[in-house]
Amino acid sequence: MPVKRQKWNEDFGEWFRDVLINAGIMDYRYPIKGSGVWMPYGFKIRKNVLQIIRDLLDNTGHDETLFPLLIPETSLAQEAAHVKSFEGECFWVTHGGYDKLKVRYALRPTSETVIAPMLKLWIRSHADLPMKMYQVVNVFRHETKATRPIIRMREVATFKEAHTCHTTGEEAEKQVQDAIGLYKQFFDSVGVPYVVSRRPEWDKFAGALYTTAFDLLCPDGRVLQIGTVHNLGQNFAKAFDITYETKEGNQEHIWTTSYGISGRGIAAVLIAHGDDNGIVLPPRIAPIQVAVVPVPYKGKEEEVNQACSDVADTLRKAGFCVELDLRSELTPGNKFYYWELRGVPIRVEIGPRDLANGVVTLVRRDSLKKQTCNASDVVCGVQKLAEEISCDLKTNAEAWMKKRVYRVNRLGEAKSLLKRKAGIVEVPWCGKDECGHSLEEAVEARLLGFPEDTKEKVEGKCVVCEEQAVNVVRVAVAY
Amino acid sequence: MPVKRQKWNEDFGEWFRDVLINAGIMDYRYPIKGSGVWMPYGFKIRKNVLQIIRDLLDNTGHDETLFPLLIPETSLAQEAAHVKSFEGECFWVTHGGYDKLKVRYALRPTSETVIAPMLKLWIRSHADLPMKMYQVVNVFRHETKATRPIIRMREVATFKEAHTCHTTGEEAEKQVQDAIGLYKQFFDSVGVPYVVSRRPEWDKFAGALYTTAFDLLCPDGRVLQIGTVHNLGQNFAKAFDITYETKEGNQEHIWTTSYGISGRGIAAVLIAHGDDNGIVLPPRIAPIQVAVVPVPYKGKEEEVNQACSDVADTLRKAGFCVELDLRSELTPGNKFYYWELRGVPIRVEIGPRDLANGVVTLVRRDSLKKQTCNASDVVCGVQKLAEEISCDLKTNAEAWMKKRVYRVNRLGEAKSLLKRKAGIVEVPWCGKDECGHSLEEAVEARLLGFPEDTKEKVEGKCVVCEEQAVNVVRVAVAY
Repeated sequence: MPVKRQKWNEDFGEWFRDVLINAGIMDYRYPIKGSGVWMPYGFKIRKNVLQIIRDLLDNTGHDETLFPLLIPETSLAQEAAHVKSFEGECFWVTHGGYDKLKVRYALRPTSETVIAPMLKLWIRSHADLPMKMYQVVNVFRHETKATRPIIRMREVATFKEAHTCHTTGEEAEKQVQDAIGLYKQFFDSVGVPYVVSRRPEWDKFAGALYTTAFDLLCPDGRVLQIGTVHNLGQNFAKAFDITYETKEGNQEHIWTTSYGISGRGIAAVLIAHGDDNGIVLPPRIAPIQVAVVPVPYKGKEEEVNQACSDVADTLRKAGFCVELDLRSELTPGNKFYYWELRGVPIRVEIGPRDLANGVVTLVRRDSLKKQTCNASDVVCGVQKLAEEISCDLKTNAEAWMKKRVYRVNRLGEAKSLLKRKAGIVEVPWCGKDECGHSLEEAVEARLLGFPEDTKEKVEGKCVVCEEQAVNVVRVAVAY
Repeated sequence: MPVKRQKWNEDFGEWFRDVLINAGIMDYRYPIKGSGVWMPYGFKIRKNVLQIIRDLLDNTGHDETLFPLLIPETSLAQEAAHVKSFEGECFWVTHGGYDKLKVRYALRPTSETVIAPMLKLWIRSHADLPMKMYQVVNVFRHETKATRPIIRMREVATFKEAHTCHTTGEEAEKQVQDAIGLYKQFFDSVGVPYVVSRRPEWDKFAGALYTTAFDLLCPDGRVLQIGTVHNLGQNFAKAFDITYETKEGNQEHIWTTSYGISGRGIAAVLIAHGDDNGIVLPPRIAPIQVAVVPVPYKGKEEEVNQACSDVADTLRKAGFCVELDLRSELTPGNKFYYWELRGVPIRVEIGPRDLANGVVTLVRRDSLKKQTCNASDVVCGVQKLAEEISCDLKTNAEAWMKKRVYRVNRLGEAKSLLKRKAGIVEVPWCGKDECGHSLEEAVEARLLGFPEDTKEKVEGKCVVCEEQAVNVVRVAVAY
């Protein structure tokens, strides 16, 4: 039963792939490269994570909707920068049955050009605005880079994309800030650390005025973009001629934003809290929050199993998701291993000695530390432990990442840190495109952009041209 | 604001299309034929309906999963009958970016051939069985018939498909009966009437041993297939060589079933309970269960609005989904019209006279009948009314459909009933294919199949060959 375990930080890529399949999250062996299956346990984690995002959006006036998958090439082509960026990575439907289609359809890589023609029908006047919508759908990119489960798929089976429409640029700008705030709330609630940066001009979303992105540092020292927020200005509105009547009776183009979190939002939780034993789930999103495992001694099986069953019932009544593991074909050790791999936050063990002392043993998945608790206080004990785990997961993941953000003033230092993938490096930058490109080339890494999550402006000289820097820019080796 | 209303039973096609867009359920004006947008209100109805199905499946050991959209042509081709039936109506992806794909991908028309290669990896021994899974996804059919919103789409945006695996044919057979039972529970819970029939050989699902289907009679006298249950025998197991090790150590092919309900499961609710004023939602799936509308009299606006607000709060606290409609730009009459169109089951009206008498007026959406209720008893009153509405919707829809099921013994009679689309006609049939085809041709309608929802066997002579009939067969003009 036990399989070879990969080290979280030494063989991260292998660790992630193995853990996904062994923990029953995603099976990546589907006969199309870059497509995977969300298995039952993984699907439940996905559902719980998405529920947090849905609640945040629902409570801030976003309506959930569902738009079509297929985009006529003629629609995709309407925004020039957009089509230029996406046409080379779209999957194209050319035939319906035995017939060739007159216009090819792209499988949506994102839905701006799906939604735009409908906005044109729906928006008449300022009274229709603002309009905030979202959908959770699959999107497709014909990736030429090496695909990786969840992180870089050709079928991104999970993409939450929000789209908003406004009467003014100021309102759109405010929505961008609100969206950043929502995403911070989401990642905070699952204890995933991040930096928020404004992407350089050459790395913004095609068709946007600018793009702001959330990045997570992975255990291998590379960053993973885990969320993006785009101010689309009036670009799509003009391309699709979407106007509204102002209070004064004039026709004006609307302003739009869009922001998305893909399956990477789920991957981030698994990556940030994982360890050599498997994944570690924050109690809030764990499909099973407590696994109750009997540790029987010959002749005491029945009593021990009964005590486990009682504790499981008590915890269930208190609202916990509990799995009572009475499988007879596995040893307690095998069961521990099984639930650790799957990241169940708390394990309750009961053996004859616990029984005799009127206690249960509680084991934290994150630290693997054991403690005992009076059997009569098990609800309180588990409740308290769940809170501690949630809190500690966040604190530890943040501390781990924070330690790996370096601020340096010299190019050579940046280069050496990035060469050994030490983490995220912040260096002063003048903001000019040419210096940015030179910097990326010199350090063989990517500019994440100026910090968007702090008001601090750092003085200094650009590490490339030595002129006055605008601020530090974040640089990292990126997925 | 008011738009022309179509009659539910006189212009059913128009009625349905208009009601979908006017009530904010589905906008069908997307630039690809047969694709539509689930709008916010419609999405909420969809979610509530799907939740009932999900609960039924979750509680009977089905695991929710998510499989890829794309099927390599090589997979689709593995089951001969299946590919023959579907290849002519698949959408085909032929290019990824600028490159032609080596193997074309079909957009899933259904997922048997998506799931099969994974089952082959997952299933090892009898201990892995039974396995019951489902997913809610979009599927695609390049329909050549006229498309209709929700009812006949090219992108079926909502398809709940379940797939199960078993060790024996008996177990698969039992699963088919269980699935029929689950679907009955589902349709009963939303008050949708149906007949269940075993489809004739020539109309079964491609690759199945046999297909059982649920049909709803629409107001125009045509039937709509709203759910199907297939016994797939060992056909897919053999085509994909999916075996398990028996207790005795032999390798045997598994037995599989599949069963699905599409967006038609949602359409059925709208169709079955609709009327000339719009849709009528069973309280259980209504996103808004109660609309509270003030009927103010000059000088009494503030008091009336306050009373409405209080009642809305009280009902919300009691767990109802309530909309308090204080829009100043609409007259009460316009508001009544607005909420009736959208099928909100109960309207609470409060005017100055109600206020003076300490009562509120409750209006049922289904019958439009009014009654008063002491303001202090509003929770009880609304609760009772909601139960009555749920019950009456089911009773009335069932009675309406039952009246339109005719049992006749002569072909001429069947023909005349079907010519004027009177409903579903049951006639004795010997069960032979050739007589079945002759029958379909003679009455210009479709054989739904032998009844599967009653044990009654009707004696009689086949209306075509006049030999001894096996039973009556249901015949109807079908969508």
